[in-house]
Amino acid sequence: MKRRVGVWIVGACGNVATCAVAGGAAVARGLSDRTGLVTETPLCAGLDLVPIDGLVFGGWDIREATLVRSAKEFGDRNGLLTPELRRAVAADLRRADREIRPGVLVNAAPEIAAMAGPAVRRRERLDAAFARLKEDLRSFRDRNRLDEVVVVNLTSTEPGLDDAPATLDAFRRAVAANRPPGISPSLLYAVAAVDAGFPFVEFTPAAAVGSGPVREAAELRRVPHMGRDGKTGETLVKTVLAPMFVARHLPVMSWEGFNMLGNRDGAVLRAPGSLASKVRDKDEALRRILRDETTHSRVRIDYVPSLDDWKQAYDFIHFKGFLGARMQMHFLWQGCDSALAAPLVLDLVRLADLARRRGESGPLPHLACFFKTPLDADVQEFAEQMKLLSDWCARARAPAPVSASRRRRA
Amino acid sequence: MKRRVGVWIVGACGNVATCAVAGGAAVARGLSDRTGLVTETPLCAGLDLVPIDGLVFGGWDIREATLVRSAKEFGDRNGLLTPELRRAVAADLRRADREIRPGVLVNAAPEIAAMAGPAVRRRERLDAAFARLKEDLRSFRDRNRLDEVVVVNLTSTEPGLDDAPATLDAFRRAVAANRPPGISPSLLYAVAAVDAGFPFVEFTPAAAVGSGPVREAAELRRVPHMGRDGKTGETLVKTVLAPMFVARHLPVMSWEGFNMLGNRDGAVLRAPGSLASKVRDKDEALRRILRDETTHSRVRIDYVPSLDDWKQAYDFIHFKGFLGARMQMHFLWQGCDSALAAPLVLDLVRLADLARRRGESGPLPHLACFFKTPLDADVQEFAEQMKLLSDWCARARAPAPVSASRRRRA
Amino acid sequence: MKRRVGVWIVGACGNVATCAVAGGAAVARGLSDRTGLVTETPLCAGLDLVPIDGLVFGGWDIREATLVRSAKEFGDRNGLLTPELRRAVAADLRRADREIRPGVLVNAAPEIAAMAGPAVRRRERLDAAFARLKEDLRSFRDRNRLDEVVVVNLTSTEPGLDDAPATLDAFRRAVAANRPPGISPSLLYAVAAVDAGFPFVEFTPAAAVGSGPVREAAELRRVPHMGRDGKTGETLVKTVLAPMFVARHLPVMSWEGFNMLGNRDGAVLRAPGSLASKVRDKDEALRRILRDETTHSRVRIDYVPSLDDWKQAYDFIHFKGFLGARMQMHFLWQGCDSALAAPLVLDLVRLADLARRRGESGPLPHLACFFKTPLDADVQEFAEQMKLLSDWCARARAPAPVSASRRRRA
Amino acid sequence: MKRRVGVWIVGACGNVATCAVAGGAAVARGLSDRTGLVTETPLCAGLDLVPIDGLVFGGWDIREATLVRSAKEFGDRNGLLTPELRRAVAADLRRADREIRPGVLVNAAPEIAAMAGPAVRRRERLDAAFARLKEDLRSFRDRNRLDEVVVVNLTSTEPGLDDAPATLDAFRRAVAANRPPGISPSLLYAVAAVDAGFPFVEFTPAAAVGSGPVREAAELRRVPHMGRDGKTGETLVKTVLAPMFVARHLPVMSWEGFNMLGNRDGAVLRAPGSLASKVRDKDEALRRILRDETTHSRVRIDYVPSLDDWKQAYDFIHFKGFLGARMQMHFLWQGCDSALAAPLVLDLVRLADLARRRGESGPLPHLACFFKTPLDADVQEFAEQMKLLSDWCARARAPAPVSASRRRRA
Repeated sequence: MKRRVGVWIVGACGNVATCAVAGGAAVARGLSDRTGLVTETPLCAGLDLVPIDGLVFGGWDIREATLVRSAKEFGDRNGLLTPELRRAVAADLRRADREIRPGVLVNAAPEIAAMAGPAVRRRERLDAAFARLKEDLRSFRDRNRLDEVVVVNLTSTEPGLDDAPATLDAFRRAVAANRPPGISPSLLYAVAAVDAGFPFVEFTPAAAVGSGPVREAAELRRVPHMGRDGKTGETLVKTVLAPMFVARHLPVMSWEGFNMLGNRDGAVLRAPGSLASKVRDKDEALRRILRDETTHSRVRIDYVPSLDDWKQAYDFIHFKGFLGARMQMHFLWQGCDSALAAPLVLDLVRLADLARRRGESGPLPHLACFFKTPLDADVQEFAEQMKLLSDWCARARAPAPVSASRRRRA
Repeated sequence: MKRRVGVWIVGACGNVATCAVAGGAAVARGLSDRTGLVTETPLCAGLDLVPIDGLVFGGWDIREATLVRSAKEFGDRNGLLTPELRRAVAADLRRADREIRPGVLVNAAPEIAAMAGPAVRRRERLDAAFARLKEDLRSFRDRNRLDEVVVVNLTSTEPGLDDAPATLDAFRRAVAANRPPGISPSLLYAVAAVDAGFPFVEFTPAAAVGSGPVREAAELRRVPHMGRDGKTGETLVKTVLAPMFVARHLPVMSWEGFNMLGNRDGAVLRAPGSLASKVRDKDEALRRILRDETTHSRVRIDYVPSLDDWKQAYDFIHFKGFLGARMQMHFLWQGCDSALAAPLVLDLVRLADLARRRGESGPLPHLACFFKTPLDADVQEFAEQMKLLSDWCARARAPAPVSASRRRRA
Repeated sequence: MKRRVGVWIVGACGNVATCAVAGGAAVARGLSDRTGLVTETPLCAGLDLVPIDGLVFGGWDIREATLVRSAKEFGDRNGLLTPELRRAVAADLRRADREIRPGVLVNAAPEIAAMAGPAVRRRERLDAAFARLKEDLRSFRDRNRLDEVVVVNLTSTEPGLDDAPATLDAFRRAVAANRPPGISPSLLYAVAAVDAGFPFVEFTPAAAVGSGPVREAAELRRVPHMGRDGKTGETLVKTVLAPMFVARHLPVMSWEGFNMLGNRDGAVLRAPGSLASKVRDKDEALRRILRDETTHSRVRIDYVPSLDDWKQAYDFIHFKGFLGARMQMHFLWQGCDSALAAPLVLDLVRLADLARRRGESGPLPHLACFFKTPLDADVQEFAEQMKLLSDWCARARAPAPVSASRRRRA
Repeated sequence: MKRRVGVWIVGACGNVATCAVAGGAAVARGLSDRTGLVTETPLCAGLDLVPIDGLVFGGWDIREATLVRSAKEFGDRNGLLTPELRRAVAADLRRADREIRPGVLVNAAPEIAAMAGPAVRRRERLDAAFARLKEDLRSFRDRNRLDEVVVVNLTSTEPGLDDAPATLDAFRRAVAANRPPGISPSLLYAVAAVDAGFPFVEFTPAAAVGSGPVREAAELRRVPHMGRDGKTGETLVKTVLAPMFVARHLPVMSWEGFNMLGNRDGAVLRAPGSLASKVRDKDEALRRILRDETTHSRVRIDYVPSLDDWKQAYDFIHFKGFLGARMQMHFLWQGCDSALAAPLVLDLVRLADLARRRGESGPLPHLACFFKTPLDADVQEFAEQMKLLSDWCARARAPAPVSASRRRRA
């Protein structure tokens, strides 16, 4: 029987989510080709991945929103989801809309809390929320008779919290005692998913995915988790270009990146805390590749409303050559953010599902190429990250080890 | 005793040659750091390479020129070879100038022939020229007591010839009979070098390095040869960026590259034949990576005199994403051509010398990363080419196999 | 009673025409704002211009095409004419479609002739064609009870002809004798329009508008005419930026312009003759402003199909400053060609109509700002061209001279 | 007898000052051409300007610096002042160095005060400082037998002060009572210059030049003054390009400007107060041209040390066209800041000197084209500002009015 896998999206009605659900439906119905899906390249040929039409969508959102409405809004602004496409997948969107549950607001940044709809419980106790989140996942699985559910966080960037619990035990105690300080929404979502036994993918810059509580829960439940922060545009190009300068012994004196974006993510980034999380991840990858203390690097992210869902970046690279020659490279990236991110979400779900069937748990370093700050992978160079994925695919194409296949059947 | 290796440059007084000789001297004297030299990165650490101060320079040129004069001219226009630097390496340049011999003009393109100085024999018979070239190399080696001589072609681009001899035998017969059609200067230089037993590196787009006569001679004499066309700027970036689009399943609809350069190489490229050779190499690498018949790619190279030795390129990349989203990337490259090429020339000499000592002969695919059209290497992706070099370095660091070391001693 | 003016477009189903007709209708119906219309800025406030909903469209085309079909095709490719908009103006497009007549093919470039539909008479005699064109205009006017008809040439670029007749008399003799050499389609259209007493606007690079026959006919019939080659993108920016370098005494060493476009105009420009006409106009404006013989300027126009109706240009400007400092400016223009050109077509019709009512005839230098090579206007600087228009507007706002108003009533 | 005019520079050893003094000397000695000098274009032909070799340099600086040292430092980093040039003008630099006096530190920003040398009196009373500054100017004039002295402020940007005195009287009272709050160095310099009877040019963003005390003193002493903030790069381009969008009725949705610079001015701008002054001036000009409340504009200025004296700017312009088409323009400016500013300093001195001889006093709106925020000139459009200058030149070429010429003789 055809495998069915649930895609449970945190931030279920956001731009990327809408594009993933509508786009997944369009591909499943044969209305759109598979462009942008890494799992549909020769690299992944022969893998036993869940088919696109085996994906079932649902998720949490704190806004009073529906995918149908988001798709309309998004299509009007962006042109990606045309009226024709929206009509063709309307039933799919409505079905997913029935699987959307309220998110949590604990310690949410003010700019996030301001978006919350009436269904969101503003005074929900932590223990009640934690239990509810896990129950949401289990009932989604059971109601839809799913073989697996993969949880993907696609919410807007949230600021880091200083006093996050360092262990699963500390987390459980804080939740039980309803002591919110240090418990960010992303931590609650991540631990809930993993503790309930579901693979978790962190596509935003939230640090929760690599925190003590999540790692311990993943080990305990033997669940894979991976993140963080999808690498879709400027940072992707950085991790492609920077190794060239290293290989050719051309020290980078300055690398200045100016990002402009116009959607809700951009508006949220006007808050300094959220901005700091994002900028750190974008800069970190570069610094780890260049390994040069003298490089002056800077990342700016500015909100430019007229760009809507388009993300533009201008990067200036100033480098030194033989005999002290000073040279420059500049690039301009004009990407449709959601169209870049959405297929990677589908890829990650398919690959995380397969990893789990193969008996893998904990961080999945072979998925490093998808993230700005890949968990437990110290390779930042994109080509080397692709090599990790390629090697894993080769292994995954081989017959699965007995222990894993046994566990699966159980 | 310290190893001494000759660097015999075809086009000995050109910009790249001048920069390589003056720069090599500056590094040897400790006046300049090793920026730009791949052989001075951690990748090559521990290799038994000839030291920079073990390199001795000489070569052929058809112009009535000296390195001292070129350095002055180049320094004034370019700023790279400052008066201070020129003074400091003046003795080195004069020493190299004493090792410069006239090149050959057989079938030279008119724009090349027009540059020839009085010392160049315009009516030299092919057989006399061929013998003289080989003798030039041997006497250079003996006079300077060199352990090895590596010949590097740095001349300006020449047009391809239709009726080039396909075999070494055909070449020898044409030379003996003084039948010039099909014998380009680069072919004569390359066969002379290899037939006299010296490794040959083709840094220009000339096809000779991979032709039948050179391959046969290399096999016969057990000599390594490699090329063609140094990958220093726009094409380097192309082979770095293009794999990203492939990896992410983002089909490139159009890739338009506009190159501008202002030095003698640029002036020569105004001739359509030479331009065709160059453009073919620049486009080929891209097409082999994208493997997409629908991609519209174009390479333009324009002469912009005010740029002097600077090479600028603007590239426009139009690509498709999920749900048919059309996105763009643009890059601007502002490179000092000679400063990019010169250290690679020194790298190639050092690596070719080591390869020979290791008993390698014929094409050296592990040097693919240095060339636009690497001989016998079907990887165009820069990161994969670097992997070839890295693997070779690992092998070369290990003790050399007995057979090779024996042969070397013999 | 409200003034009614006919807009007779040569190339009536092309992209610009389609956008002008559909856009004019959308503005008239209040569905679209007046963005892009110069005649709707404060500069033109108070002028007695024909209202947008007083414009009636028709024209010639050699293709078997309709505006309804073009709008569909254009909308699908370009996104500018959305399905909603097309539905809203469908009646207007159909009405205009009923006013489209076959164009002429005399001496048409092969790439143009290849597009011709079955209705176009391939063997029409020149005298018959000339008479027919004039009759088409008169019957359009009478049938629609128009106060005026302005003819605008929006065809693709055509190559220049060497032996064009220098005088109206020579033109008439060639037509009468059916001697096609030297008679280009654009010349036939232009003389027909002017000789029949209708103002003529040349929006393509065709030289006919300034030729002897047209000038003489315009004088004879007291009709205004103006051109040539609409200034919509890169050349507009050039004529805006270049005066800055002159004013600041910063000599431009090189100005290299790389244009890329993807629509039918681009495909036609692959023919060298047409390309030469276009490039000449784009370069000429710059050279006239810089007045510097040492400037190295180049214009390239390349066909990049994936761009469809978008026109991108990258320009590189290399300039000198105080103490010989060498500096650079680069710009990238990403314009929707039809959206830039279409409102200017409407502007030119309105302004030509008003000029005629004011008794003006012959070239209209105050419209120089709309053209790459303005007829009889030796100012190329955009700001100074705007001053000419502004001064004319001031005069036109004043009561019209008696003679003109009388003639109008007659 | 040849006219001799003093150029008294505040910030006498800064980059722009060094370039102005060394460059002025090079031009006077015939070693460099007049590129970059607006007063040497046809526009200013026939004006009775002081010749370049009639300029005598001196000034104030708070740093312990000399022009000889600055020229060396600047030449090494920048390449503009070559060793040859420095040798040729060494005597001129030394002569100017003898005319440098200590500046004042009252209310200086911490980043400025940190640069002060030992000669600067850190506890100088305001009244003593004010008297000393005026005496410095008078003794410079007398010692060098100058016909005029023009004071030009070239210091780094300083933060605005909230409680600056609004009138000359209030200023005098604060100075007399030694009440520093509200008295910025630039205010002290400006009032001292004007009150002592010398024309004052504000080339930095300091607001003093348009303040009550300076205006009153200028009226009282009948002295011209003008500013503020030299328009040399990105803002110049903005005021050239923005009118095009207005003229063509293409509303600008977003205009994002990213400036990068690496010299001392850039380092100073890392202080938020100074940055705010600068950004305000750069943005204001644009907003006044566009007159569109909906435009989203932003100016960023970042310190990128590797750029040294080079100033790069990337600007992104997002605009709307006919039928709602959304289009983009981007530009990249790579300017050598000092080479752009220095000749304008010489121009302003020559034009201010001539204005004074013509009997003009108070703000000089015809010099608006030189400034980001021109005093009492409400035209921001560069072409219109050039028209103001051109009209003034026409008047200035005519015989001076009697009253003015009389006063001059008196």
